[in-house]
Amino acid sequence: MDIKALEKAALSVRALSIDAIQKANSGHPGLPLGAAELGAILYGEILRHDPGCPAWPDRDRFILSAGHGSMFLYALLHMCGYKDMTLDDIKNFRQIGSPAAGHPEYGMAAGVEATSGPLGQGIAMAVGFAAAETMLAARFNTAQRAIIDHYTYVLCGDGCLMEGVCAEASSFAGHHALGKLIVFYDSNRITIDGSTDIAFTEDVAKRYEAYGWQVLRGSMYDFEEIARLTAQAKAETDKPSLIILESIIGKGAPNKQNTADVHGAPLGADEAAAARAALGIPGDFFIAPEAADYFSAKQAAWKEERESWQSLFDSWSRENPEKRKEWDEFHNGKAAPAAMPVFNQGEAIATRAAGSKALAAIASANANLAGGSADLKNPNAVGLPADAGTWNRQNRAGRYIHFGIREFAMAAICNGISLHGGLRSFCATFMVFSDYLRPAIRLSALMQQPVVYVLTHDSIFVGEDGPTHQPIEHLASLRIMPNLCVLRPADAEETAEAWAMAMERTDGPTALALSRQNLTVFPKADPDWKNTIRTGAYIAKQALPSDLGADAMADLVIIATGSEVGLALEAAAKATDKKIQVVSMISRELFESQPQAIRDVIVPPGARVIVCEAGVRSGWERWAKVEDILSIERFGESGPAAKVADHLGMNAAALLEIINSEKI
Amino acid sequence: MDIKALEKAALSVRALSIDAIQKANSGHPGLPLGAAELGAILYGEILRHDPGCPAWPDRDRFILSAGHGSMFLYALLHMCGYKDMTLDDIKNFRQIGSPAAGHPEYGMAAGVEATSGPLGQGIAMAVGFAAAETMLAARFNTAQRAIIDHYTYVLCGDGCLMEGVCAEASSFAGHHALGKLIVFYDSNRITIDGSTDIAFTEDVAKRYEAYGWQVLRGSMYDFEEIARLTAQAKAETDKPSLIILESIIGKGAPNKQNTADVHGAPLGADEAAAARAALGIPGDFFIAPEAADYFSAKQAAWKEERESWQSLFDSWSRENPEKRKEWDEFHNGKAAPAAMPVFNQGEAIATRAAGSKALAAIASANANLAGGSADLKNPNAVGLPADAGTWNRQNRAGRYIHFGIREFAMAAICNGISLHGGLRSFCATFMVFSDYLRPAIRLSALMQQPVVYVLTHDSIFVGEDGPTHQPIEHLASLRIMPNLCVLRPADAEETAEAWAMAMERTDGPTALALSRQNLTVFPKADPDWKNTIRTGAYIAKQALPSDLGADAMADLVIIATGSEVGLALEAAAKATDKKIQVVSMISRELFESQPQAIRDVIVPPGARVIVCEAGVRSGWERWAKVEDILSIERFGESGPAAKVADHLGMNAAALLEIINSEKI
Repeated sequence: MDIKALEKAALSVRALSIDAIQKANSGHPGLPLGAAELGAILYGEILRHDPGCPAWPDRDRFILSAGHGSMFLYALLHMCGYKDMTLDDIKNFRQIGSPAAGHPEYGMAAGVEATSGPLGQGIAMAVGFAAAETMLAARFNTAQRAIIDHYTYVLCGDGCLMEGVCAEASSFAGHHALGKLIVFYDSNRITIDGSTDIAFTEDVAKRYEAYGWQVLRGSMYDFEEIARLTAQAKAETDKPSLIILESIIGKGAPNKQNTADVHGAPLGADEAAAARAALGIPGDFFIAPEAADYFSAKQAAWKEERESWQSLFDSWSRENPEKRKEWDEFHNGKAAPAAMPVFNQGEAIATRAAGSKALAAIASANANLAGGSADLKNPNAVGLPADAGTWNRQNRAGRYIHFGIREFAMAAICNGISLHGGLRSFCATFMVFSDYLRPAIRLSALMQQPVVYVLTHDSIFVGEDGPTHQPIEHLASLRIMPNLCVLRPADAEETAEAWAMAMERTDGPTALALSRQNLTVFPKADPDWKNTIRTGAYIAKQALPSDLGADAMADLVIIATGSEVGLALEAAAKATDKKIQVVSMISRELFESQPQAIRDVIVPPGARVIVCEAGVRSGWERWAKVEDILSIERFGESGPAAKVADHLGMNAAALLEIINSEKI
Repeated sequence: MDIKALEKAALSVRALSIDAIQKANSGHPGLPLGAAELGAILYGEILRHDPGCPAWPDRDRFILSAGHGSMFLYALLHMCGYKDMTLDDIKNFRQIGSPAAGHPEYGMAAGVEATSGPLGQGIAMAVGFAAAETMLAARFNTAQRAIIDHYTYVLCGDGCLMEGVCAEASSFAGHHALGKLIVFYDSNRITIDGSTDIAFTEDVAKRYEAYGWQVLRGSMYDFEEIARLTAQAKAETDKPSLIILESIIGKGAPNKQNTADVHGAPLGADEAAAARAALGIPGDFFIAPEAADYFSAKQAAWKEERESWQSLFDSWSRENPEKRKEWDEFHNGKAAPAAMPVFNQGEAIATRAAGSKALAAIASANANLAGGSADLKNPNAVGLPADAGTWNRQNRAGRYIHFGIREFAMAAICNGISLHGGLRSFCATFMVFSDYLRPAIRLSALMQQPVVYVLTHDSIFVGEDGPTHQPIEHLASLRIMPNLCVLRPADAEETAEAWAMAMERTDGPTALALSRQNLTVFPKADPDWKNTIRTGAYIAKQALPSDLGADAMADLVIIATGSEVGLALEAAAKATDKKIQVVSMISRELFESQPQAIRDVIVPPGARVIVCEAGVRSGWERWAKVEDILSIERFGESGPAAKVADHLGMNAAALLEIINSEKI
């Protein structure tokens, strides 16, 4: 270990960060200045990576959970030689299009393993990465060859450690003995509001010991110590490790270090100059030659190590052609077709139960699908076939994950599993508690991860559990999240297609809204509905037999989703004097993204449109007048489902009243 | 302590719970059967309450954080003689209109201090109750007389303790030394999915010690021990106490106790019969005569204690007329008028900064307003006037609360402060992180608590911090929550009115969407706009001078909110060939709730309407065609705000293009 070179590398992290933030006139110098030494040794000595091949499957992962300190990451990626992060990119820090974005954005540069910034979620995603490593290792490694054997490192700060999602994920990680997860805690005792003394004086070390972690302590500014502590963390294979590094926020800014001022604002010209002078930085965007040489000299070793792994992998491939075939299937980014369940018309089955059968078929065909529920395995109906096994410390090849009652961490962990590569992930809870994990769904969507969210008990038809358990605004609130596909199937057959559609997605998450109550499988007017539904909607019931001419246009079109399609069919059957077409719109946002011509086939222009959905109407006003939307604009009630529905006017009678109203 | 009577009381809790759940064919017997002994001693011996006067301000509070065990609460309220909970109500458990709702619903029965059921939030709200107690005690108690001196008790289970919000709140409670918070942990080691061994093996006691709590242990089934532990908890005045009571879920159901089966489903006729036989329950909805006698005999003592407090309070009132006056102001449910800040036309000031001035004025006029930010005091601009002080263990009379980086707990704590009575609460974070605390906003709305949520940095105009920090879907997702009022003021003057409107609310929460960036104070066409704005919208700029006749109708109406009103005014000024009316719609849902006649005055029927808002369009389709809505349907970008806006087409040029388009 070349301490001098590491010192120069740390100096260069500081120099690049000061200047990039100063030039952008925006950013957070506190962390990159305060933790520069860790960055140097982490990227120089600890991480097993190859900047020339950032997608190396067995690389160590590093997640900057304290994402506001993004210049820390960018400076190191650049110095290590990651091609996606040029000096010009760094000079364009926080400018549109630069991979050196305000916070690390997954997909904008290799080496950015996850989008971080929303505090606490980085560490929770890292738990997912570490879980994924155990799954892949258990499945693919042989007694002779360990093709998956890497660590997940995290840098977090006080902010992450105060967040509940971090607490949930850390408890989970300790329970599940994720020994290859190593978290560095940049303990600088300063947050935006000032000293941590004002709000955060708990004994973090003791808390993490209580979670079942190994806790180590040292100084941010002692390379030997960091190396020793990291070795100690690696030696403890049954426990994740928290390495608490005492540090000084903004170290090197002579007048601002160790104050909240340095956390989230540029140093300013004077302090930047003072820092440069104090640190001995001779120029703008300075990279010390010794640091450049040091990282340059590393390239060969990094490459060699990666190539050595490649040889190992090639040998393994030759010796284990079946495993290699499965490896390729895991990594080809496509879901395998599954023998989906068949349902019978007239069969009454909750879509959560139908979803269970579809999930079982998909899980059997896709051995790389892992996931579970936040302690609602049976209510959510997301148990996997027995041979999939349960993932835990005894069985790392298992695929069902007991997340505990930790919804938010569950979703963040699923993001981590998905980001790791090689695996698909799903998770489940009651739809009303999608609020608990919403910030992680947003990251799935932003990072374009195809995580499947199974949200059961999707309306007031939950019944007795009452308003705290009855979603009202949730369908609408999920639909409006960019890049999230919300599917609300109307019966068991649609549910199987919905699961298939979710697995077909490769560039974003899907939320499946499933019913608690039984729904009857209905005949579909559109013979090609399994294709048409991929537009987001199809004609469930035609106004008149299909051989009628154009003059037999529907009097009105009822658009419904999920359980309310059955209600629409019921009302339509009763309104015998009207020519009514019923459209099942499994995904409004998908349908709205279709070309006009396709939309017009399913919802003919000029027809009166009625919408029926057991939730708020917001967003449906595009399709129908307010008075033609049967919705629920208040919180629910505790009572048997049918009675609650009657009480709230969500029934066929109310729909018939709208149908028969003489609106202009 | 009459152990025999307590045993009979516990037996009666079991009897009522078994039968009510069986009759409803829905509910959670596990907790009420498992924790019946605690219920008996808690309501019989520990709680200082008077069922004849449930609103007694100095009563002890009890929050059933494990809300699914609602029959525990209802059985005890009934036996104690709370008028709102009759035996018929219990027989109507989980039926529409019964105060014995599926989960405890605040407002449906006296004695239900909070709506619980969404796990973890009960304990977090209890932290708010305990904080509120310290604030009122510090303000009103004198050396001679302590008119506020009560405890907050909680019963929680494994589920609550796994939730992140509970972790956040518990860390907060330890830091802030809330010695009068006493949490009973029903440790039955069973969750819905089975044994806690599958997901939750952390050392809870050690974790709570790490938070700075006193941790005690005992058996759920030893009255003497519970009494002793409670005394010990009360004796520790500097630390909250966690009393871990080892228990057996569903105790008394001979074949199902200690299994997950008994958690959340009725026992079934056979097991119910077996339980009745095993426990010696002679009839339906049985209340043991000894239990009835025991609680009956308590009435006089309870009443006496409350009357004794009333005497104390009366003496205190006589001795401290100024304090009494303030007490009445604190409890009259109305905000006092404040000397609101005045702004000048043309002044450029961010609405968050304007909000800061309004908040300062309101806080000066309303000494019962307390709150703070999740470590963003200056960015959110929610500091209080210096004389308001900071609330902490040294200064319980302080009103600014440092919540730490714990958004969700912050909001739940604010709910608790509001529910306690006597205080108003507010809290603040970046709008994008409203997702983190969304489940608590939902409870504010459901419980009709007038908590004010200050959400700054309300659009892509956040700029450099990028997509993780730029709200896109948040305005829309907040607007659709029932009973939440979302106000997005367009300039400093509107911001002052928005704060005033938030304080005028008494039956639900308000979210204030405030800008990071400066906005120019503009002249308002409507001379009475300060009244009109309370309809949710007003005319900011008229199409033509107001003395013109009816034939001078606007060519088009631009509806905008917040920072986009300025943009609309800019575009309207440029489109000199059009008669354009600009409407500032501070609250769409409020405006939509107005009678048609009022709406028509502000948005004339027949006029072409264009909408402009820097967020998703969903919900605006009621007001304009899709092609006439200038919105943002994707995640944001990291860059300087103006450049991001140009990049996303959120500028006057894009609006002008719509204005000048020749749409049919």
